Amino acid sequence: MSFPALLAASSVQVQARLDAAMRDLDDEPVIHAMRYACAGGKGLRGFFVLESAALHGIAVGNAIAAAAAIEAMHAYSLVHDDLPCMDNDDLRRGLPTVHRKWDDAVAVLAGDALQTLAFDLLTDPALGPHRLPLIAGMARAAGARGMVLGQALDIAAETATAPLTLPQITRLQAGKTGALFEWSATAGAVLAGADPAPLGRYAAAMGLAFQIADDILDVTGNADKAGKRLGKDAQAGKATFVSLMGLDGARARASALIDEAKTALSPYGARANNMIAAARFVIARES
Amino acid sequence: MSFPALLAASSVQVQARLDAAMRDLDDEPVIHAMRYACAGGKGLRGFFVLESAALHGIAVGNAIAAAAAIEAMHAYSLVHDDLPCMDNDDLRRGLPTVHRKWDDAVAVLAGDALQTLAFDLLTDPALGPHRLPLIAGMARAAGARGMVLGQALDIAAETATAPLTLPQITRLQAGKTGALFEWSATAGAVLAGADPAPLGRYAAAMGLAFQIADDILDVTGNADKAGKRLGKDAQAGKATFVSLMGLDGARARASALIDEAKTALSPYGARANNMIAAARFVIARES
Repeated sequence: MSFPALLAASSVQVQARLDAAMRDLDDEPVIHAMRYACAGGKGLRGFFVLESAALHGIAVGNAIAAAAAIEAMHAYSLVHDDLPCMDNDDLRRGLPTVHRKWDDAVAVLAGDALQTLAFDLLTDPALGPHRLPLIAGMARAAGARGMVLGQALDIAAETATAPLTLPQITRLQAGKTGALFEWSATAGAVLAGADPAPLGRYAAAMGLAFQIADDILDVTGNADKAGKRLGKDAQAGKATFVSLMGLDGARARASALIDEAKTALSPYGARANNMIAAARFVIARES
Repeated sequence: MSFPALLAASSVQVQARLDAAMRDLDDEPVIHAMRYACAGGKGLRGFFVLESAALHGIAVGNAIAAAAAIEAMHAYSLVHDDLPCMDNDDLRRGLPTVHRKWDDAVAVLAGDALQTLAFDLLTDPALGPHRLPLIAGMARAAGARGMVLGQALDIAAETATAPLTLPQITRLQAGKTGALFEWSATAGAVLAGADPAPLGRYAAAMGLAFQIADDILDVTGNADKAGKRLGKDAQAGKATFVSLMGLDGARARASALIDEAKTALSPYGARANNMIAAARFVIARES
């Protein structure tokens, strides 16, 4: 199966678990917005959870709640990032953002409830005896030491007098996107009580490559295919991996990181082929 | 010791645990805003956690992280509720709200990170072997079946054509404030693996009494003592327990609920005296 087909199949399963978690909620705009925000993503983070679980012999049914949790957490972050007081984006995944389709209040609350839902899903007994480290890791990855810190640094950069340096941007992105990628890719090892270090090295390299590819896409991409506004970092005069390394330099670095990610998985041998295909996809994607 | 003195002593301990959890975070506005939002509250919810723990023989050190967690969760809800797109309040606990002191983006992110921090604190090993039901209960209480649902109903009521009925307001408040109260007051039983039902009945009655008292305070209170804007529900033409039951009716109902709360704790005998004092405080407070 091609990697896009694998990813689509995984995404369908994760979406079904999210639908089940939200099935009997009230008929309110906030609830509709939660479902809307979870739909239509690529499902990369959920894929990493299921695939790293499979690497450790864990069945889909014993990992799917964790995959749904990370997708809910990711969806919350997008809904809040798109708000007018944050990145002020009108378009996401080719559709109006939540605050454009409803309003800011609904977007704040839907994001809030999606974060709660992520932690709720991680208490699913089907995930087995290692749920607590998984929950603790999620809290570290998403909070003021991880994703929110990255977003805070990003906002601070907008009013800073000098553009960020490469180490500063790397740190920002490690929080903003890297932390959830690392949680996702190591989740299977954590669920199995195994050593998460190889997957952690894979995720650190792959997550950084993802962000470099995002910056490349922001310059070279097609807004229709991407389903979101492009070129905004350049317009805003923000430092990006491309502005700091040049387009060729950024491409070379992303490619080297994918080699690093691949090497990190050598303990798993050929069983890691899907994870390696995922890393390649991350830098070749068009959205 | 008088109840206000007991409450103040509990609040100092909870605040210290929150400070410890946030001690080594980055020097960013979002982090400063998180600390600011956690300061200066009465600490009622944290008190309920510590006191219900004491009722089950659990030492402060084995419950304090749960008390800090509920105060972080409560603080997040206030920061987001105060946003211009929600209740648009300038004053909280006698000080500028987070979005007034910083800006909306900082308020969104600080609230987000405080919710994450709440779940982080609940993974503290000092809380012992019953952390998972505590986390699951927190997720249920805070999310789209609890606090966020209450807030969503509250927002929907603002544009509704008819004022809410008593059953509708009761349901709204059960979500908006009741769910976190119930989690707090039952936390000690959950931590001990004991039956939470008596404390659950206590919390349901006390939580509703708290909200009725809030509506009474909104009409009769002193804004300086309350440290927040008052009279806003009446101004907005919103149905409240006072508009639906009259001032005397609301007072009588709150008083009857406190009797109910007291009766629910009869299995604990005189050991529940502090919890009963807390329930009385809830309807007699001035802020």
